[in-house]
Amino acid sequence: MFSYKIIGYVAGIISMISFTPQVYKTWKMKSAKDVSIQMFILYTTSTLLWIIYGIISEQPAIYAPNTVVLFLSITQVILKIKYDSEDRKRSKKS
Amino acid sequence: MFSYKIIGYVAGIISMISFTPQVYKTWKMKSAKDVSIQMFILYTTSTLLWIIYGIISEQPAIYAPNTVVLFLSITQVILKIKYDSEDRKRSKKS
Repeated sequence: MFSYKIIGYVAGIISMISFTPQVYKTWKMKSAKDVSIQMFILYTTSTLLWIIYGIISEQPAIYAPNTVVLFLSITQVILKIKYDSEDRKRSKKS
Repeated sequence: MFSYKIIGYVAGIISMISFTPQVYKTWKMKSAKDVSIQMFILYTTSTLLWIIYGIISEQPAIYAPNTVVLFLSITQVILKIKYDSEDRKRSKKS
């Protein structure tokens, strides 16, 4: 029997995976100049709220993948701050 | 009376807003080298699925903001392709 919940799980899995290439790219290039930190701070906040919403409304398709997204989103914010500060130091030296 | 649905609406609004700074930054800097196109393609796909899930399960907090996110996410993909191709042309000339 087809349940719409499957769509939620697939959507959740893809949302979950979607942040990985950005975190990997930032980590590999050691640069995130073009990445907006505001986006990831807002995104981290909304992810936290989606987790609360998903837990209260008992929708694992919402809270489970968002827990991974929260982790990736926080990692992206940390990498962005780290590489931007290294960039500033480098441009001061030169 | 407090309803958990309010959390969903707030989460939805913040998710919706969160993509705006990235699209604005890309448009203003005319560069998106550090932005992962894979992320935004995957994100566009998951957003489309969240809209379907939200419509079937009658959760406007899910489908309404995701419609805006879908538009912003597609815009980001287009801007990324545009500025990356301009970058390549520029580096060929120099």
